[in-house]
Amino acid sequence: MSDVKKYQSQLRDVKLGSGVTVVEPVNAYECEIGNDVFVGPFVEIQKGVVIGNRTRIQSHTFICELVTIGEDCFIAHGVMFTNDLFKEGGPSGNDKSKWGETKIGNHVSIGSNATLLPVTICDHVVIGAGAVVTKNITESGIYAGNPAKKIR
Amino acid sequence: MSDVKKYQSQLRDVKLGSGVTVVEPVNAYECEIGNDVFVGPFVEIQKGVVIGNRTRIQSHTFICELVTIGEDCFIAHGVMFTNDLFKEGGPSGNDKSKWGETKIGNHVSIGSNATLLPVTICDHVVIGAGAVVTKNITESGIYAGNPAKKIR
Amino acid sequence: MSDVKKYQSQLRDVKLGSGVTVVEPVNAYECEIGNDVFVGPFVEIQKGVVIGNRTRIQSHTFICELVTIGEDCFIAHGVMFTNDLFKEGGPSGNDKSKWGETKIGNHVSIGSNATLLPVTICDHVVIGAGAVVTKNITESGIYAGNPAKKIR
Repeated sequence: MSDVKKYQSQLRDVKLGSGVTVVEPVNAYECEIGNDVFVGPFVEIQKGVVIGNRTRIQSHTFICELVTIGEDCFIAHGVMFTNDLFKEGGPSGNDKSKWGETKIGNHVSIGSNATLLPVTICDHVVIGAGAVVTKNITESGIYAGNPAKKIR
Repeated sequence: MSDVKKYQSQLRDVKLGSGVTVVEPVNAYECEIGNDVFVGPFVEIQKGVVIGNRTRIQSHTFICELVTIGEDCFIAHGVMFTNDLFKEGGPSGNDKSKWGETKIGNHVSIGSNATLLPVTICDHVVIGAGAVVTKNITESGIYAGNPAKKIR
Repeated sequence: MSDVKKYQSQLRDVKLGSGVTVVEPVNAYECEIGNDVFVGPFVEIQKGVVIGNRTRIQSHTFICELVTIGEDCFIAHGVMFTNDLFKEGGPSGNDKSKWGETKIGNHVSIGSNATLLPVTICDHVVIGAGAVVTKNITESGIYAGNPAKKIR
């Protein structure tokens, strides 16, 4: 007889603005989702995350603790945010002083399957599909590649 | 009291061939799935997509509008198709004249976590795992990397 | 009238250790999951996989047949394992003599959106987010990029 604990993906303790649309299953908890936000299926949003008004979070995306996303952003499919660089050779566990935070400005579009290390991205930036963002972006423009570089 | 609208992932208005297998949850709508196609779990297939006979769509894959996939293809896990290049610095929204379409031939295999910009791929092509396909492929062979190049 | 066959993602014939936590939906079958393992939502684990004690499998990850993962590992989000290199221009189908196996040691951390070809990875290795691992790793350290190279 196994003692496995099973939980169900759900919206739990989410501060929801008005006009939010969610395609379940979605696992989101203890986070804040602004007005008119869309959240596609197979998305996880962890605690403390803040998502601004009118931003779209597409299917298969994962948004971890310590991530803040501005208004009018488009986060495409399969985008993975991170907060732990495994600096000491592995997960920092519950020692959040070793985690890094991510701040995404307004009008930012992040392409499908992009991966973001803990970074700050200014307003009006486009990240190409499949890019890996390893550094802060302080200038508007289009960035792509692994590691992501400005292409336009 | 939140006015959140929740929808459930499901097969809705899908034209299904015979002998199709689906592992739910899957979110597929207003698309066409041929005979003997397999669709794994956590897959989204958007409206207008056409999938040819005997093709396999593995778990975690996202297939967007304006994508057509031929027969006997193998689309592995976590593959992301795209249709919007954010050419003007952000999503083109409902102006589909700015979207691009993708046509995948027959006997094409696309490796896990690959990302495809809007492209045409001819028959008998292999795309390596993790590749980012940014250009049309008109010659059979094996392609890998970011951006994907012919390796064999 | 369609004859589509629908299956539900579930834990089926999984040998579970004690203290396992699972956030559903998860599709896992005919595999072995050790003590105190965590499995996040939207994960698929195929038959024959073995996952060691205290290892964490995060959301959106896919673990295929012929993969063995050691103890105290951290497999982040959207990680895709593979077993078929499409060597002859397409899927090897049921001819498993053409598949490759993957063995992950103990205390290995694999970053989000990483992709692994069939490889062996020794103990105490960190794979960066978004990396594509194409070769065996026999030396502890931190590896990143596409293809993954030692960076520290």
